[in-house]
Amino acid sequence: MRGFASDNYAPVHPDVLAELAHVNDGHAKAYGYDDVTVELQGLFKDHFGPNTKAFVVFNGTGANVVSLQLLLRPWESVICASTAHINVDEGGAPEHYLGTKLVDVPTEHGKLTPELVRTAWQRVGDEHATQPRVVSVTQSTELGTRYSADEVGALADTAHGFGGYLHVDGARISNAAAGLGVDFKEFTTDVGVDVLSFGGTKNGLMGAEAVLVLNPGIDAKSVLNIRKQAMQLSSKQRYMSAQLVALLRDGLWHRLASHSNAMAQRLATAVGDIPGVTLTHPVQANGVFAIIPGDAIATLQASYPFYEWDENTHEVRWMCSWDTTEADIDSFAGLVRSTLAG
Amino acid sequence: MRGFASDNYAPVHPDVLAELAHVNDGHAKAYGYDDVTVELQGLFKDHFGPNTKAFVVFNGTGANVVSLQLLLRPWESVICASTAHINVDEGGAPEHYLGTKLVDVPTEHGKLTPELVRTAWQRVGDEHATQPRVVSVTQSTELGTRYSADEVGALADTAHGFGGYLHVDGARISNAAAGLGVDFKEFTTDVGVDVLSFGGTKNGLMGAEAVLVLNPGIDAKSVLNIRKQAMQLSSKQRYMSAQLVALLRDGLWHRLASHSNAMAQRLATAVGDIPGVTLTHPVQANGVFAIIPGDAIATLQASYPFYEWDENTHEVRWMCSWDTTEADIDSFAGLVRSTLAG
Amino acid sequence: MRGFASDNYAPVHPDVLAELAHVNDGHAKAYGYDDVTVELQGLFKDHFGPNTKAFVVFNGTGANVVSLQLLLRPWESVICASTAHINVDEGGAPEHYLGTKLVDVPTEHGKLTPELVRTAWQRVGDEHATQPRVVSVTQSTELGTRYSADEVGALADTAHGFGGYLHVDGARISNAAAGLGVDFKEFTTDVGVDVLSFGGTKNGLMGAEAVLVLNPGIDAKSVLNIRKQAMQLSSKQRYMSAQLVALLRDGLWHRLASHSNAMAQRLATAVGDIPGVTLTHPVQANGVFAIIPGDAIATLQASYPFYEWDENTHEVRWMCSWDTTEADIDSFAGLVRSTLAG
Amino acid sequence: MRGFASDNYAPVHPDVLAELAHVNDGHAKAYGYDDVTVELQGLFKDHFGPNTKAFVVFNGTGANVVSLQLLLRPWESVICASTAHINVDEGGAPEHYLGTKLVDVPTEHGKLTPELVRTAWQRVGDEHATQPRVVSVTQSTELGTRYSADEVGALADTAHGFGGYLHVDGARISNAAAGLGVDFKEFTTDVGVDVLSFGGTKNGLMGAEAVLVLNPGIDAKSVLNIRKQAMQLSSKQRYMSAQLVALLRDGLWHRLASHSNAMAQRLATAVGDIPGVTLTHPVQANGVFAIIPGDAIATLQASYPFYEWDENTHEVRWMCSWDTTEADIDSFAGLVRSTLAG
Repeated sequence: MRGFASDNYAPVHPDVLAELAHVNDGHAKAYGYDDVTVELQGLFKDHFGPNTKAFVVFNGTGANVVSLQLLLRPWESVICASTAHINVDEGGAPEHYLGTKLVDVPTEHGKLTPELVRTAWQRVGDEHATQPRVVSVTQSTELGTRYSADEVGALADTAHGFGGYLHVDGARISNAAAGLGVDFKEFTTDVGVDVLSFGGTKNGLMGAEAVLVLNPGIDAKSVLNIRKQAMQLSSKQRYMSAQLVALLRDGLWHRLASHSNAMAQRLATAVGDIPGVTLTHPVQANGVFAIIPGDAIATLQASYPFYEWDENTHEVRWMCSWDTTEADIDSFAGLVRSTLAG
Repeated sequence: MRGFASDNYAPVHPDVLAELAHVNDGHAKAYGYDDVTVELQGLFKDHFGPNTKAFVVFNGTGANVVSLQLLLRPWESVICASTAHINVDEGGAPEHYLGTKLVDVPTEHGKLTPELVRTAWQRVGDEHATQPRVVSVTQSTELGTRYSADEVGALADTAHGFGGYLHVDGARISNAAAGLGVDFKEFTTDVGVDVLSFGGTKNGLMGAEAVLVLNPGIDAKSVLNIRKQAMQLSSKQRYMSAQLVALLRDGLWHRLASHSNAMAQRLATAVGDIPGVTLTHPVQANGVFAIIPGDAIATLQASYPFYEWDENTHEVRWMCSWDTTEADIDSFAGLVRSTLAG
Repeated sequence: MRGFASDNYAPVHPDVLAELAHVNDGHAKAYGYDDVTVELQGLFKDHFGPNTKAFVVFNGTGANVVSLQLLLRPWESVICASTAHINVDEGGAPEHYLGTKLVDVPTEHGKLTPELVRTAWQRVGDEHATQPRVVSVTQSTELGTRYSADEVGALADTAHGFGGYLHVDGARISNAAAGLGVDFKEFTTDVGVDVLSFGGTKNGLMGAEAVLVLNPGIDAKSVLNIRKQAMQLSSKQRYMSAQLVALLRDGLWHRLASHSNAMAQRLATAVGDIPGVTLTHPVQANGVFAIIPGDAIATLQASYPFYEWDENTHEVRWMCSWDTTEADIDSFAGLVRSTLAG
Repeated sequence: MRGFASDNYAPVHPDVLAELAHVNDGHAKAYGYDDVTVELQGLFKDHFGPNTKAFVVFNGTGANVVSLQLLLRPWESVICASTAHINVDEGGAPEHYLGTKLVDVPTEHGKLTPELVRTAWQRVGDEHATQPRVVSVTQSTELGTRYSADEVGALADTAHGFGGYLHVDGARISNAAAGLGVDFKEFTTDVGVDVLSFGGTKNGLMGAEAVLVLNPGIDAKSVLNIRKQAMQLSSKQRYMSAQLVALLRDGLWHRLASHSNAMAQRLATAVGDIPGVTLTHPVQANGVFAIIPGDAIATLQASYPFYEWDENTHEVRWMCSWDTTEADIDSFAGLVRSTLAG
């Protein structure tokens, strides 16, 4: 069952389970008014700056939808990459819940650019068109690439220049930070990110994410109403906050993300020179994308589950996770080599 | 901090934490395609009948909204008690997500009756009015009362007679079952309940509920799409399923619910004859409702948190949970007696 | 076919048709950027004050939904009478389009009061409850009664005191104005109405209503986006504006509404003393409500269509319109008398 | 003011006004239960086949949204051309009202093909993706082209092959029919169109469109509820039905559409050989699209209003309407020639 299908196939890190047991002591106020959540707020301020306001939610779709609801009026739209998770992998939740158009833009390697945003930011003041308000980028992207702090800042400047906002879908924000070698704050709050979906589940947690309002000019208090209405408010929230505390308190986030990134690099290196393997995107986080011969896919999947990302081109996705081992990589790379040599 | 504010102030039962650790072993398919969820499906069939189809969701609001979405077209409405959780305590999630009117009906002790339903089921075929389709009841109710199997069956018959459905919000379904002394199936599937929101969080879990489609005539498969779109699909679902497995496999649900029910009975008995205390609803589950002198409320809350349910009448709610002890009850009842004796 | 079913059974006043022919001259900009609409804006300013901003829409449901969308965030709710058109006669459009809860309040004669509003304006700051933001009243009401300028002002003050807004559903605002003997402005803008749905269709037009933003503190420009998104933007708007111009330019609105009001008074007087007829509400606009013997209803309807308003009590509604004649009234009243004498 | 901005800048044809006056006689049942609407139903059956069920609505956006609501469950999506009116010119109404994703596909000349549909109809059964259900095409298209009956049939077959539906946005369906030289039925009902938005406003009416349910297997009755909830139900519907009666009874639709088509041909011929003018799409309905020198645009617009369709390429749109004259065309073409020669 070990494989490269998704970082959410991986188990929960033992430290996280230990933290759950630790907070399982007596009564606590429900709905986020508990002491663990207070501790978590402090940790988020440490990592993202003193104006950070954090709201724990269940999953990434919830984090994204709550974030966008905070920023949008009903007739406003979101500019995103056509490969964005909000565009293609959330079952239409953004359109359904928000009643909003996603203006999806084809990109190279899943990354928006200021130029792409400017081209898409059109028909302002025309009541017949939805009005752009939010640029949403994924960091690291769905294609295993990442934005530098400068690139994020340029997108924030572009959005702000139009009177809009920059939202970051950070389902794998730890992988981006570890890959960039910077603190969270340096490539988010410091460069103008307004609201961020902070992901934990793909980085060793059981299931906990957070909406972070980084721009102090935004009325963060409304998130309380939005989160409840969006069915994202946990009653026994201490158990979700505890997971995030375990991740953020002592650098667990960095150790796990660095490891999964390193495993992806090892995999890319190991398969990169195999005849028949063509890497399709820079490997900058914990995923490797490659085109391989179509008839090899089923054979490989039989031993190591992974997804065929594009059935037409036979592009595949290999995700590494916090528990991926060097042995996993080496064994799989060997199988790729032998199968393709076959 | 121990008190009677809510059954979701209570911690997680140790058996549940143990089960989480037990399933934390290696990779597992995400999004509910794991072995733990398969085991859970079997347990739900054992408890609710062989046609049961279960879909794990994050919380009670999610369970209710997903259930109702399955049953409603956009112009159809839901008949519920005015005290129903969906009507007053879900931040408007049903109206917002479903775009549906809740036809809320004043009741005695929070319980709908066939007569109340028949009165509310009006203007059929009139395009100017929303069209009733679902009757939704809470079991046990928000006021600590419960429906007998016969009462549920009569409501199901009424709804079915109109071509509609009966949904049960079972956030505290275990308390109702334990109180009635029957199996789950006897007062749900066997008497015509179509869809049920199965609650676990208030009965010792960390956070896990399920939508149960009991009527085999309903296209349950759509719940997969609805759950995803409603932001209620957990990626690492094995950890949510594991909680429900722990609850259902060896009767933990019954032991915990019986205990909290017994504690409520003990409390009702202990305070029932105190001058100044008037019990306002039959005590049939794990909650006690009473009118007490308004000036005593803050004093009592200082020692034991609980909610003032109605600020005008000074009705208070005292919820017992799986970890409430006889000592908790006796000590609190003593405080009530001494405080009211002034 | 003449009868008392509804003021929208009546035909279009000849002056309105004449105005349509008058503006049917050559090309004109679409979507409200035509000269007729400019003229209409001036007329609305004349009648409702210089800060008035008017937006033409197709029908009353559209006017109400657009008005409310302007004033609400997704988690906010509307307090209205349980008999309000938005609550019971718009097919669930407000809940569906706005995703909003209507907090409906039982009233006497269909009229909210400050006390009723204060009682319903509860749980402020509680994220588990929708947050009241708008009080919506109907003027004249669905039960043929009306609010005085003072009563409207007291409701506006109440809503504003909570940081909210007062919306008026003025589908029959002309009947209220004519009945009160005041200008439009005196009982709307001058006493604090924030947004008003101005009705024309029931007062002799073919089909034209308007959203009037009276409070200059509200960003009226958003109505352009809302109206378009709500499918309420007419391409050839000059023909809708022309109808409203015909109504407002030379007092046609007053002549027609006064007439229909007078006919209702005549009817109330004529039937008021008939044994078996009990008027149920003050007759203050163009509708008469009465309880009559149930077995007489079908007989009367065979000659003069009207609605049985409440099948349980046999309350009926008799609506007068701009083209109701004294002969209509006298003939019908005679029939009522002879039938009930039966 | 005469020009080529839009066919909805044109006035109402005198026959339509005459019909309005004709039906303005006494009382009539409201909300579509009048005799004029009955007559209209018969006319639509004559033109589209005996199973046709017609529902009058206010505007094209309303027709499209009501049509799609009938065909979609919440998690289902619509495949359309990226240039489709529903995608770019309805202020986000489809996404907002339906909560649905529009899967927009780049096309040649605004026309979907079976191959494009097959490519877009993907991830069936994958709960993480919206599920395609409806193909929506515009006939004639937003770019002045049209589908042949065979092309429509092939698209219907493709959609039906997937278990889906074909919807036609027929805002300019008369122009397509006149251009093809066929009856309405031949290229709609006969070739498998399921639901059609029938347009009248752009072809000489004041404001009236209709949803036509052509597939007898679809539960058309629900449109009554949908239309009301979507704020598209006219109370005095006889005046909208009368417009459509005037259009359909004696071939007015064909005379007007043929004329506007002929004017577009005349214009295309007149400007087609002017140096600097490049026609960008086949001229198959009443619109001409051309790229012209950017610096000539303002000069031409000063005399004849029209839209610059693409500011980057200086593509312009010249729409002809039922009242466009040969003199209009010749004069404008002369101006184009002289300006570009300038």
